[in-house]
Amino acid sequence: MRVEELMRKQADDRHPDLEAALKHLLASGGKRIRPAVVLLTGGMFGGDQELLVTLAAAVELLHTATLVHDDLIDGAFLRRGMATLNSRWSPAATVLTGDFIFARAAKLAACTDSTILMQLFAETLTTIVTGEVTQLFSSRSLVQRADYDRRIYAKTASLFELCTRTAAMLSPVDETVVERARRFGYAIGMAFQLVDDILDFTGQQATLGKPVASDLRQGIFTLPALYYNESYPDDPTMGLILQGESVEESAILRLVEAIRASGAIRRANEQAESYINQALQDLSSFPECVERQSLEELTRFLIHREM
Amino acid sequence: MRVEELMRKQADDRHPDLEAALKHLLASGGKRIRPAVVLLTGGMFGGDQELLVTLAAAVELLHTATLVHDDLIDGAFLRRGMATLNSRWSPAATVLTGDFIFARAAKLAACTDSTILMQLFAETLTTIVTGEVTQLFSSRSLVQRADYDRRIYAKTASLFELCTRTAAMLSPVDETVVERARRFGYAIGMAFQLVDDILDFTGQQATLGKPVASDLRQGIFTLPALYYNESYPDDPTMGLILQGESVEESAILRLVEAIRASGAIRRANEQAESYINQALQDLSSFPECVERQSLEELTRFLIHREM
Repeated sequence: MRVEELMRKQADDRHPDLEAALKHLLASGGKRIRPAVVLLTGGMFGGDQELLVTLAAAVELLHTATLVHDDLIDGAFLRRGMATLNSRWSPAATVLTGDFIFARAAKLAACTDSTILMQLFAETLTTIVTGEVTQLFSSRSLVQRADYDRRIYAKTASLFELCTRTAAMLSPVDETVVERARRFGYAIGMAFQLVDDILDFTGQQATLGKPVASDLRQGIFTLPALYYNESYPDDPTMGLILQGESVEESAILRLVEAIRASGAIRRANEQAESYINQALQDLSSFPECVERQSLEELTRFLIHREM
Repeated sequence: MRVEELMRKQADDRHPDLEAALKHLLASGGKRIRPAVVLLTGGMFGGDQELLVTLAAAVELLHTATLVHDDLIDGAFLRRGMATLNSRWSPAATVLTGDFIFARAAKLAACTDSTILMQLFAETLTTIVTGEVTQLFSSRSLVQRADYDRRIYAKTASLFELCTRTAAMLSPVDETVVERARRFGYAIGMAFQLVDDILDFTGQQATLGKPVASDLRQGIFTLPALYYNESYPDDPTMGLILQGESVEESAILRLVEAIRASGAIRRANEQAESYINQALQDLSSFPECVERQSLEELTRFLIHREM
């Protein structure tokens, strides 16, 4: 895939350790959903392939760079079943590798030769980082629904929105279509994160690759927890987590069971479905083509995946 | 100053803690040499003031972001006599604040509406970060002169070069002038870092704001140390530092005295002067005006400053 190749090339001739780090990170895989969204959206609108490949690589590298710094911050040792950079390197090297990947992502974005795209790119990075700062300073406080929406927008939907919006911008379509493409990206991004947050409660540790309810354990309240709290505001375990008290494993598992048994998961799923429906509706207004069909499949896959 | 205002505004409405962090960082001052170089160079060539102010703020924020991550990596608690971010915040918040400032710098750079400028901006960030990675993985090995030149180019001259080159690019001048402006920036940047490295040996702890020979203590060999080593390859203290052995304070101070007494400082000074002379020569080919006069003063100041 040409996107892979372009990403890999970004550390060439720079520094052997950076090259190794980038190679390791890219080998860890990931589903490359964002590049796919860029290529399919731009393809649907007849955009220039060369530019779309560059944009796709830029977006995926931006995503990779934020993951590198995230894993460092969380002290995570595994991502996608592979060792994180920070588990093998010093924090110093990890910070710098993230910075390096940011720089290469920005370079690629600049190669699209669109300053508006560059501005949106930088603005999206700002949104993502501001969201992380907000989360850092506000975990262990029950957030409002609006805060949750803002958080998943910053964390995930902002980048999906960037993918579809900029892919459309690089294509011969008018402003109305660009705006609808943006909205489509927003919707699939929101759905993507919502489903992630649901799977954190419904999945098994083996398939999740991390303990169940990992957000809740860190005092981060996602939509299922928020809905559960609306119905059962006096749950003692929730209270302890909110106060930052340590909670026994058995109590966590009981709480997870309670959330699963409540209507919280169903309500969260309905919310994800409503984003998916909006996305499918936007899609149906785009030109009928094989790319659109793939985007429809991808959109439906988002809600039915098991990670 | 309009550059200050523009920099300060970059955290508005984002997050109170980011706003506070940015305010703290900008209040720590710094000499704002890079914005001055941008404004004077562009002013000399009749560039658009609005664009130059934007570029100046972008460059200074890029510089600030790299310092934030640097201080975190070095575990430094003071910079310019003020508490560093990482001395008061968690590493997580410090990493993210640096990322945030990168994002804002990129946004401002994109606002200059020049994609070539954006590419150079991203390329310079790549150079700076690659230089830091190289230093991280190669300290405690005696570098060659060419490695030293590469290191100070990455650390300092690349950004000065970016300042003068892009300021000229935003002005109504031809390619030859842009290239000469780039070379001028390169020369003052190299001189700037060389003088910094000299002052690390000749300065007093009180004015340096850090212990004398701080680089050497970390196993980083700058030009005075390289020259000294050429003349005295068998100095035992140098040998211990190279092997990463702990060295007593008294031995360090004796070594500093020996370097001061040797011709190493004089030779390093001559090197800095030769960059300054080249810079002054390039300057003399530019239009005579008050900005050029200020740049000449600034260039001369670089070599005579005491920090």
